[in-house]
Amino acid sequence: MSNKRKVAILGATGAVGQRFIQLLQGHPWFEIEVLAASERSAGKKYGEACNWVMETNLPPEIAEMPVANADVASVEKAGDVDIVFSSLPGDLAGPVEAEFAALYPVFSKASAHRMEKDVPLVIPEINPDHTDLIKIQQKQRGWKGFITTDPNCSTIQLAISLKPLMQFGLNQIIVNTMQALSGAGYPGVASLDIIDNVVPFISGEEEKMEQESLKILGSFNGKSVQNADFQISASCNRVQVKDGHLESVFVKLNEDPSLDEIEAAFTKFKGEPQKLKLPSAPVNPIVVRHEKNRPQPRFDRDTGCGMSVVVGRIRKDPIMSFKYICLGHNTVRGAAGGGILSAELYVAKGLA
Amino acid sequence: MSNKRKVAILGATGAVGQRFIQLLQGHPWFEIEVLAASERSAGKKYGEACNWVMETNLPPEIAEMPVANADVASVEKAGDVDIVFSSLPGDLAGPVEAEFAALYPVFSKASAHRMEKDVPLVIPEINPDHTDLIKIQQKQRGWKGFITTDPNCSTIQLAISLKPLMQFGLNQIIVNTMQALSGAGYPGVASLDIIDNVVPFISGEEEKMEQESLKILGSFNGKSVQNADFQISASCNRVQVKDGHLESVFVKLNEDPSLDEIEAAFTKFKGEPQKLKLPSAPVNPIVVRHEKNRPQPRFDRDTGCGMSVVVGRIRKDPIMSFKYICLGHNTVRGAAGGGILSAELYVAKGLA
Amino acid sequence: MSNKRKVAILGATGAVGQRFIQLLQGHPWFEIEVLAASERSAGKKYGEACNWVMETNLPPEIAEMPVANADVASVEKAGDVDIVFSSLPGDLAGPVEAEFAALYPVFSKASAHRMEKDVPLVIPEINPDHTDLIKIQQKQRGWKGFITTDPNCSTIQLAISLKPLMQFGLNQIIVNTMQALSGAGYPGVASLDIIDNVVPFISGEEEKMEQESLKILGSFNGKSVQNADFQISASCNRVQVKDGHLESVFVKLNEDPSLDEIEAAFTKFKGEPQKLKLPSAPVNPIVVRHEKNRPQPRFDRDTGCGMSVVVGRIRKDPIMSFKYICLGHNTVRGAAGGGILSAELYVAKGLA
Amino acid sequence: MSNKRKVAILGATGAVGQRFIQLLQGHPWFEIEVLAASERSAGKKYGEACNWVMETNLPPEIAEMPVANADVASVEKAGDVDIVFSSLPGDLAGPVEAEFAALYPVFSKASAHRMEKDVPLVIPEINPDHTDLIKIQQKQRGWKGFITTDPNCSTIQLAISLKPLMQFGLNQIIVNTMQALSGAGYPGVASLDIIDNVVPFISGEEEKMEQESLKILGSFNGKSVQNADFQISASCNRVQVKDGHLESVFVKLNEDPSLDEIEAAFTKFKGEPQKLKLPSAPVNPIVVRHEKNRPQPRFDRDTGCGMSVVVGRIRKDPIMSFKYICLGHNTVRGAAGGGILSAELYVAKGLA
Repeated sequence: MSNKRKVAILGATGAVGQRFIQLLQGHPWFEIEVLAASERSAGKKYGEACNWVMETNLPPEIAEMPVANADVASVEKAGDVDIVFSSLPGDLAGPVEAEFAALYPVFSKASAHRMEKDVPLVIPEINPDHTDLIKIQQKQRGWKGFITTDPNCSTIQLAISLKPLMQFGLNQIIVNTMQALSGAGYPGVASLDIIDNVVPFISGEEEKMEQESLKILGSFNGKSVQNADFQISASCNRVQVKDGHLESVFVKLNEDPSLDEIEAAFTKFKGEPQKLKLPSAPVNPIVVRHEKNRPQPRFDRDTGCGMSVVVGRIRKDPIMSFKYICLGHNTVRGAAGGGILSAELYVAKGLA
Repeated sequence: MSNKRKVAILGATGAVGQRFIQLLQGHPWFEIEVLAASERSAGKKYGEACNWVMETNLPPEIAEMPVANADVASVEKAGDVDIVFSSLPGDLAGPVEAEFAALYPVFSKASAHRMEKDVPLVIPEINPDHTDLIKIQQKQRGWKGFITTDPNCSTIQLAISLKPLMQFGLNQIIVNTMQALSGAGYPGVASLDIIDNVVPFISGEEEKMEQESLKILGSFNGKSVQNADFQISASCNRVQVKDGHLESVFVKLNEDPSLDEIEAAFTKFKGEPQKLKLPSAPVNPIVVRHEKNRPQPRFDRDTGCGMSVVVGRIRKDPIMSFKYICLGHNTVRGAAGGGILSAELYVAKGLA
Repeated sequence: MSNKRKVAILGATGAVGQRFIQLLQGHPWFEIEVLAASERSAGKKYGEACNWVMETNLPPEIAEMPVANADVASVEKAGDVDIVFSSLPGDLAGPVEAEFAALYPVFSKASAHRMEKDVPLVIPEINPDHTDLIKIQQKQRGWKGFITTDPNCSTIQLAISLKPLMQFGLNQIIVNTMQALSGAGYPGVASLDIIDNVVPFISGEEEKMEQESLKILGSFNGKSVQNADFQISASCNRVQVKDGHLESVFVKLNEDPSLDEIEAAFTKFKGEPQKLKLPSAPVNPIVVRHEKNRPQPRFDRDTGCGMSVVVGRIRKDPIMSFKYICLGHNTVRGAAGGGILSAELYVAKGLA
Repeated sequence: MSNKRKVAILGATGAVGQRFIQLLQGHPWFEIEVLAASERSAGKKYGEACNWVMETNLPPEIAEMPVANADVASVEKAGDVDIVFSSLPGDLAGPVEAEFAALYPVFSKASAHRMEKDVPLVIPEINPDHTDLIKIQQKQRGWKGFITTDPNCSTIQLAISLKPLMQFGLNQIIVNTMQALSGAGYPGVASLDIIDNVVPFISGEEEKMEQESLKILGSFNGKSVQNADFQISASCNRVQVKDGHLESVFVKLNEDPSLDEIEAAFTKFKGEPQKLKLPSAPVNPIVVRHEKNRPQPRFDRDTGCGMSVVVGRIRKDPIMSFKYICLGHNTVRGAAGGGILSAELYVAKGLA
């Protein structure tokens, strides 16, 4: 009998839910016990409820699983669960995740609770200590479980690339994103909107990048998270790429490191997941490429099985200290993979 | 008998050369007299030498024209010419354009001579007075003709959008481009390089944007052009769009105008071409859109027959004064259309 | 005061409805009086109810028009109407169009009534005499108005190309389509489904092509339409093209014309709209191109303002008599433009 | 010391050459000894000579290898070689491959020698006995080595799908292809030619499919190959897909099997590579999918590591016996992978 932790996935039929299923196949610590989704899907077999959009085949045993409704009673009826992953759509996520968090550890990919003061917004390599916020959360809310959240996909890769730069004193960040279609979920962006086109607007994205980055890179004093004190401005665009957000970043530092020192900071960066050898941790959170025209989404998004952030074109900037290009796989590191790594961190720390 | 000025097009078989041909159909002041290209094409009929990539049909009478070699003797043998448009590739353009400029007014789309001190780099709405540099050029070089140049395509649209902001004191500009495939000419970008991808590098483009902008927006004191004194940093990307460069621009101004004042400056901007009612001048050099997700390349690139720059998403910036999105048709305003407008300006001022 | 016929458009907010609005701008015979759509849009201004996806701007006076609910009472309250165009979705179209047809001439782009025995399925160049079916329809159904239908978009262009071949005895047709995204309406095909992909299935499309072609090219004996007696097989695919369906056609004829005779048949073909000089009639219903690699969607879809079918690569076939490539603009000739041309035919014949 | 066979790759810098390198990494029987290419690349390190377009990284030790000129003397100087793979461009392949074949077994992906009477055109699952042609070839030409060829990429997958149908008596085949960009090599198709477009022409492709299929599926009587006696017609198109040719196939059989019998024939099909358990042999040469809209290039091209042909939409046809959709990975099964499988067959049979 397996002694893996049993997992429920809320929002299992969506694009991120599918990626959770894909990445949890053969996971050493977790196994899928319950798939839950909205009323429209509940009661059907997963294979019928879901329009599977992964390139790997839908595992037959997953296809046969029934879809439970995304509420505690229905999920408990469907199986015994230790941990809950949620990729519910924004409007549903708020109350449903809270209902589960009263009883279970909830790892949420939704934005609903991210900016609440007692909810950790975790990237395991950056702020593993923020996980201690859950004790405050549990106490304040009287919960047996908790909610911990993953940042927005475009924020995650940016924040990872910024973390090793903090030693030089982060002052100002200007970032322009060129984001993949899968970031909008499924069906997401209409093909007629994006063919031969770029859409220079993604609802709420710029605000998320600007706000979440400060919390993630902020410091936890045992009671609350103090925002980091750099300034940040984002401009977000949708481009015709399947997976992989590309970001053009301009950074002003307080200190004046050489480009070699900056590159070394990127390359040497390791975090708690690497030390703990978490199952989903990439060997290198950041990989630097030296070709003049890399990283590129199609060629580099799968670096480190999609869990590494790829940095390139590190060069002096006439206005800021330097500029670079940054790429991350938005549905692996930026969504399901990041959520699983976070759950691994909580488990390794004995918190879930 | 027509008393239109007779035009030779150097580099007539390339993508920009084709656009010159397309835009000169029915032009009230100019008519095509000679088509010239490299040795590989010389001697053939144009319809055979050229892989026509415009969506409009190749005019049959153009298809029948012979292609001359791109040297003065061959062109003069092919016809009497008043004006020369050049879209020669960079390596050829330098010496060949100089040879023609000894005798003819040469309007060059190539980068070879742009940054030479006695060569005007002209956007008719911005710096029509820079045309007077040609007198100094003619004197210094002993030429009867002259060379005047058009800026790089991504620079043109940025510079047009910056001109009306100069009244508020331009201080710093950070720009990220998402450039169309046609900017690389034909065959240009390989389809295998760009499908499901973005290429975050265009050779020499960032340098061109950073250097040319300062010259274009600089001031001519009767002897030479003094560079404008703002700072500028560019990061350039190729995206899967046929025509239309999209630019995400962050601007720091010395003054502190409201967003309404900034928008009014864009909207009211008119230049010499509008005053002179030049045939290719758009009614509005800059068109502002108010939808939250515009401008977009496919929908807005043909604004003002491709000669207007479209601006949108004017909004406050946490770091700089404000940010906006800017779009221009890179092979119309950014290439052939811009070159024709420049020639119209010289003609209207009696300089060609 | 205008004495144009006043038009209501049902399904005005959809992709085909938008194309109707675009093509009716400045129409000499028709003017838009009422825009109607489903309950979700009714009561709003058109500019708010509609996500305008045409490349031309939404005319401001159209944006200000109120959207009526798509029922007779609401439409009559909104204005006096002479003619109704319907591009309602399939499930709504059946009963709603019938309700209108009791009182008004209804030109339907929906499939609901196409195959009913007393409903004409009209392509004006092919079967203008089928319009007389409406007298039988009116008598049988006791209607003052009538329903006439346009074929499916991929059928229209195929049928036009087949019509001039009937003189040689059509025997068998095998056709493979490569259809544009706009054929699925808006939002239609998800971008994640089609990037770097082809989808070899379009629901119901093969059946429509196989059934409708026989009715369109059938003969009307004054009482009913006798299906044409050739055999036809279709295989339908969705490709990443915005507009323009491309079809690869293999034809077996009873006779043995030369390729020149076949080409001449295509080129000389004219129909009633050309004789009547209807406002939307292209000069040539079929245009033959001789380049080895044409027609192509992006280059040829706007031929004849999108109302001509473009044929190329006419060549001998090892199995059938010959094969060719056929292209049509699916939302102009294949939808709104075809519907308007049909209405023009009815008006010119005094039937509407 | 390795006792693997040492391999030279001619045309190593091209797209197929790169795929050979990628697929030969860790191969149990073969190791790369010499990389050769045209004069332009000879003398450089491979990493400098080659624009690597695979999504996997260029192996560092390959990047350091020198590129030899593609002639026997230069290759022999560069290393001891047992086997030669050639993906030289068509114009070079003829004489160069012949020069090598005098001494070495040459496995050619080029079309130059395919239709020569004493040259086998081999798909290991279909006609493994055709390999015996090389004895005749060696005798006639006085060669110690030999040339064996792989078919055209679009032919390979069609022929594999046709092989199990031969038991029902193949009579007529009509096929329409929708071919991937990588089929044209690199740089291959210009992005400006294919964006928002389909190109309904690929030079020489229809002829290759029509001629090669008959030879591959023909029978070898110990002296020569007798062409199969069915009729075949192809129409070939280029679509915006990176890898994976999709083919719409209409088949007339002499017998009248049920669709179930046809599907069973596809599913049960095994060939010599499966019996011999060759290293690159897929478990199933043909995989049948039952979804109504599959196979699709992006989702199914990697089936069987790109070595399986995927068939779907098996359905009755109004004219022929039945129709289906067929997909193959054009640069794996259709090129380098097919070539390696062929070499494995020769080795297993003691012929190389």
